[in-house]
Amino acid sequence: MRAEILGVGTELLLGQIANTNARWISERLAEIGVDVLHHEVVGDNFDRIVEAFHLGLSRAEVVIATGGLGPTQDDITRPALAAAAGVPLVRVPAIEERLRRRWAESGREMPGSNLVQAEVPEGGREIPPVRGTAPGLVVEFGGGRVYALPGVPAEMREMMEGTVLPELSAIAGPSTVVSRSLRCVGMAESKIAELLDDLFHGSANPTVAYLAGGGEVEVRLTAKAPTRQAAEAFIGPLAEEAAARLGDVVFTTADGSLEEAVGRLLRGSGLTLACAESLTGGELGARITSVPGASVYFIGSAVTYTAEAKRAVLGVSRETLERRGSASRECAAEMATGARRLFGADLAVALTGAAGPEPHGGAEPGSAWVALEAEGGFAHQRSLRWPGDREFVRRLAEQAALDLVRRHLSGLPLPS
Amino acid sequence: MRAEILGVGTELLLGQIANTNARWISERLAEIGVDVLHHEVVGDNFDRIVEAFHLGLSRAEVVIATGGLGPTQDDITRPALAAAAGVPLVRVPAIEERLRRRWAESGREMPGSNLVQAEVPEGGREIPPVRGTAPGLVVEFGGGRVYALPGVPAEMREMMEGTVLPELSAIAGPSTVVSRSLRCVGMAESKIAELLDDLFHGSANPTVAYLAGGGEVEVRLTAKAPTRQAAEAFIGPLAEEAAARLGDVVFTTADGSLEEAVGRLLRGSGLTLACAESLTGGELGARITSVPGASVYFIGSAVTYTAEAKRAVLGVSRETLERRGSASRECAAEMATGARRLFGADLAVALTGAAGPEPHGGAEPGSAWVALEAEGGFAHQRSLRWPGDREFVRRLAEQAALDLVRRHLSGLPLPS
Repeated sequence: MRAEILGVGTELLLGQIANTNARWISERLAEIGVDVLHHEVVGDNFDRIVEAFHLGLSRAEVVIATGGLGPTQDDITRPALAAAAGVPLVRVPAIEERLRRRWAESGREMPGSNLVQAEVPEGGREIPPVRGTAPGLVVEFGGGRVYALPGVPAEMREMMEGTVLPELSAIAGPSTVVSRSLRCVGMAESKIAELLDDLFHGSANPTVAYLAGGGEVEVRLTAKAPTRQAAEAFIGPLAEEAAARLGDVVFTTADGSLEEAVGRLLRGSGLTLACAESLTGGELGARITSVPGASVYFIGSAVTYTAEAKRAVLGVSRETLERRGSASRECAAEMATGARRLFGADLAVALTGAAGPEPHGGAEPGSAWVALEAEGGFAHQRSLRWPGDREFVRRLAEQAALDLVRRHLSGLPLPS
Repeated sequence: MRAEILGVGTELLLGQIANTNARWISERLAEIGVDVLHHEVVGDNFDRIVEAFHLGLSRAEVVIATGGLGPTQDDITRPALAAAAGVPLVRVPAIEERLRRRWAESGREMPGSNLVQAEVPEGGREIPPVRGTAPGLVVEFGGGRVYALPGVPAEMREMMEGTVLPELSAIAGPSTVVSRSLRCVGMAESKIAELLDDLFHGSANPTVAYLAGGGEVEVRLTAKAPTRQAAEAFIGPLAEEAAARLGDVVFTTADGSLEEAVGRLLRGSGLTLACAESLTGGELGARITSVPGASVYFIGSAVTYTAEAKRAVLGVSRETLERRGSASRECAAEMATGARRLFGADLAVALTGAAGPEPHGGAEPGSAWVALEAEGGFAHQRSLRWPGDREFVRRLAEQAALDLVRRHLSGLPLPS
């Protein structure tokens, strides 16, 4: 099956935003064995959108369009799709009712212009939105099928995963692609590649891809076979061998984030966790609580951004603050002790340092200290130093803190 | 003048890299007033690259292609361009000599395969590289002109700036594009469009685009004129009229986030801020501290995820927790009071609610309460309800909290 990806939006042609949707969709389609032969981008221009649908269906069986489904006058993908298919738009009462209900629930009156979102090209169907208000559309004509999805990445992804990918997988049939991910923390991408490359060297099937970012490396193994069972049998032993070679830097062999892996361990242990944060400003707590149900094991985080707050809220000693500074090994340890006591938690992990761009609390930008305190007075500390921008330094400090909790709960060796 | 941007490379269609070259080139072309009507991406396939050149020149006077000029067997833009123009490739001795000299200078022997880089379609010319070894190409045919540039961003940019942009500016004549952004919080995209649409309805110059996401709407006005001064004079009064119509929902008329706008207000007022968070888990503090220098005005945040932590850390009363629940108006107010006292801050803003997917603390998913306490016992509260996923509810609660601080510091009316 061949697919074409069509981005709609003048902001793309003006270079105001990058076409990240096309990249994401391409990656997902590759995983299910659908060939993408063209990407195309047009602006918010009726005639050119209509032409682009015709061109797309002359080159592929499936066109996946993103953007132009909002309620404003520059959103014209809906009428252009109807025109390309040669059918009128019809208002669907069930969609209208849902729109009105969502607006009513939020206590606001729905502007009349939003009603266009209740229209569907005759003979087509909607993809109901979970997150936003714009429904997606599916219309068949010209020997193929068009999916029109919202341009907002989160709304687009939801519809790709819930509707488009399952439908295309079902049609694409007996060539199945199976991927397995090993997600790693605490080892560089190049080192991981050195350990694994001979397993895959020169192989077109299975393949290995290394995706590094945010202080993690995802090793993605992909195999293609006529059936899912055959692909699984093909990839299984390789994934096991790769996991064995990588050892304890692998935090999950399924999908999911490091905070989810830590959450599973906390849930399994019955222990509770608290945090004390400085340079990360609350992001560590935010990540831990991004996992639904985190309230079972997470009690809270004390974000103490000033030296005085570290003293008053967490009981860090004046002596440490004056002699060692608020970005120091000693301060991190006292913050962990203070957070464990303040929140009455079984475990507390603390983070302090200088995110940059300026030195802070007596430390160079890019320095961070992480401390863990557990029951029985057990404590462990770690110091880190990375060059990088503010956001990157914060992220790596969080990774180090989460990894310390993971290793402690799993009984793995702790890095120093 | 109309231009089309053609990306060549299978790695783009597999989603392994994003087409950032198209974005950068688009932005530069917009600045010199060249209209980009299409982006197109094809893989390393001879027939499809030839077709893409023909299609491009049927829709635009200039095609700017990137990628496929290297020395390996998958680099076929050069022969495909010659085939599209219907001319043979000829080896240019001056290019060959330069290639050999560069390789000799680097102390390595030139592999024979690199000689293809000395070939130019008959009648065309090269763009000599400064940084890399791959020359760019310029070929005129089919009533237009094709520029073929390397895919490596630094090499592409060097040729755009040194050759393509000056040449196109000379042909296109003096024309400049200027954009102005109004960033809004607290008003729906469709409502904003209703207030502004008559200013722009049916206008191709200036244009307006509405970009909604993350609980904000960016209104971007763009005008084109022969000079920057004329474009500014054109857009200025419209931007002022739009800002006047939108009123106090506009938090900035420059670039920058809501947390930056709040940071500027806090810095200007000399006041300090603390937070108390529940459903957002620390994300509000993380956003405030993502702004460099936030330590001047931000003291800390108490993330109290359990009812017991709200009581022990922030002093929320047992009575409130038992009778109203931890996700309630009363609890938010007591959290703000507690955070202001705990951190010794001038202002404290508190957030509580149920992010979902389950009800929490006696509240339905998607409910949030925000409270602000300021000097002199001034307090303000707000409740919200928005259906959506966990991440979306958290984001909207943060927006409401930041907007409450913004409105308080600006002396604007506070929403209820």
